[in-house]
Amino acid sequence: MIDELSALRRIKERLNYIGKGVVVGIGDDAAALSTEHNSLVLATTDSQVEDVHFLKEKISPKDLGRRALAVAVSDIGAMGGVPRFFLSCIGLSDCVDSDFFECILEGLALGSEEFKVIPVGGNITSSGKLFINITVLGEVEPELVVRRKGAREGDIIYLSGTVGDSALGLRILKRGGNTLEEDSFLIERHYRPSPRLVLGRELAKRRLATSMIDVSDGVILDLERITVEHGLGACIYIEKIPLSYCYRKRVSDFAPDPYELALSGGEDYELLFTVSKERQKEIEFVSRMLGIQVSEIGYVTGEPSISVLSLHGGEKRIPYKGFIHLRK
Amino acid sequence: MIDELSALRRIKERLNYIGKGVVVGIGDDAAALSTEHNSLVLATTDSQVEDVHFLKEKISPKDLGRRALAVAVSDIGAMGGVPRFFLSCIGLSDCVDSDFFECILEGLALGSEEFKVIPVGGNITSSGKLFINITVLGEVEPELVVRRKGAREGDIIYLSGTVGDSALGLRILKRGGNTLEEDSFLIERHYRPSPRLVLGRELAKRRLATSMIDVSDGVILDLERITVEHGLGACIYIEKIPLSYCYRKRVSDFAPDPYELALSGGEDYELLFTVSKERQKEIEFVSRMLGIQVSEIGYVTGEPSISVLSLHGGEKRIPYKGFIHLRK
Repeated sequence: MIDELSALRRIKERLNYIGKGVVVGIGDDAAALSTEHNSLVLATTDSQVEDVHFLKEKISPKDLGRRALAVAVSDIGAMGGVPRFFLSCIGLSDCVDSDFFECILEGLALGSEEFKVIPVGGNITSSGKLFINITVLGEVEPELVVRRKGAREGDIIYLSGTVGDSALGLRILKRGGNTLEEDSFLIERHYRPSPRLVLGRELAKRRLATSMIDVSDGVILDLERITVEHGLGACIYIEKIPLSYCYRKRVSDFAPDPYELALSGGEDYELLFTVSKERQKEIEFVSRMLGIQVSEIGYVTGEPSISVLSLHGGEKRIPYKGFIHLRK
Repeated sequence: MIDELSALRRIKERLNYIGKGVVVGIGDDAAALSTEHNSLVLATTDSQVEDVHFLKEKISPKDLGRRALAVAVSDIGAMGGVPRFFLSCIGLSDCVDSDFFECILEGLALGSEEFKVIPVGGNITSSGKLFINITVLGEVEPELVVRRKGAREGDIIYLSGTVGDSALGLRILKRGGNTLEEDSFLIERHYRPSPRLVLGRELAKRRLATSMIDVSDGVILDLERITVEHGLGACIYIEKIPLSYCYRKRVSDFAPDPYELALSGGEDYELLFTVSKERQKEIEFVSRMLGIQVSEIGYVTGEPSISVLSLHGGEKRIPYKGFIHLRK
């Protein structure tokens, strides 16, 4: 077991980077950050809670730390911003020993380097269950912010990367799996999500995306958030949903409908965004330039509902709509 | 029980203020905030966890919401800053029904008005135990930031208000108390702390405080943080520690030494700060002007240790040093 003071001391030793803009970092009442003139501060907060977002016995503490940060910086990317700083509030249970805690910090430090986001403060508390709350502050030029609203009827809907991998990885884990070669990839996608910071930023800089969100609760639910909640709707084609090779190979052992998990599973942290028809060519260019797969999956409609169509005709019914905390 | 979507909808309805500087508020991936030119963003994060910081059956949910915010804005005040925005991450357990949740929001809304701090985002998650994590962003002019370090040998040490009330209030609660008139005041001080934002700001604007901290873990432990951790020390006089009338009346029923709780109890959220000898008169003026009691309790020394002296001669031994999470 580790006590608060040792934990704080270790945080200061392990995470006390001084970077550009950090006027006061870890170890004071609050962090003091200078911002460039004419830029916006972006702020987001997210928690990973034991037995809700992860099982302490299943995830490595290093992945846990990195993942908590990845999930939070992803929100900054989905606004078209650049993550700059983070604060962590860690609730430690009696079962967390100092090795485990050290590995959480290692994961946070890894993520910090990977996402170029500087730790600037935080807090340690005791807690019945382990949790990690991460607050990320980022920056974006006011004229480049990409919001959830902003899509117009007729805009094309795009999705980066592939979806469903994380949800399938979790199912494999729950079954006690990881027997096949494909399993490792899917489990990796669950434990080590890659927020699409570079793509989000490029789409913002070119003012290409009219609306954008990161897929955390499943494509359908997050699609509702950028269309239906703003009086619009969407038609998407089921066959256009981007699925990975490993997902295609393994999904039949876990679900009769290969698209169910892909559309409703969540925790993909891919970008879902809309672009006006006139600028489709530019998306293809950006995708090639960055080497990131971007798939057209449908278009925005004027009716506030989501239709899932088949290229061969007909409409699909989606069994359920994504992950909602505390829903019975 | 309340589900995530209803909870989010209620937050948007109840807390979706649009204030100056909020370019994007609640309901997007991150909050976008504009800052004045040449000012610093201050950021702090704090959690209140069930069975650690509060007992769900004992505290009213309204006080719980307000208190979570008060504790976090207090850190901004202790830097000499002005709190501007906050994000909340709430972990809801199955036992939280919508009435209880509504009252937490009511408390957050109350605090929001009282401390003039605008809610700009957050997150809801499920959790075995209820917790509220608050991140506050504030602003301060770069030349006015008051840090924990900065005190010099010979500086006078001051404390605002009175200390020990909150710790004594908690002991009364634990004994199932609130029988005497004085008890209500002490319990109120525990449940409804008043962060010293106005005083902290005034001290910063006048560049009066050479170092400052808010008393969250007890006077002795927090005094170490502004002296011993920076190679200095302190001598304080036990009889100069400011105690309230109610505390003096009730403490003997709970502790043989009236100063034990006052010096080590914590959760007072009063300001502990140092001032150079030459500027003592100004402190008296500020105290009178704001109508806030400020007491001289001792002075900064060059030896890295804390001595507790008596005006009648002799040194006191303090039984323990403040609240440390997870310490056995």
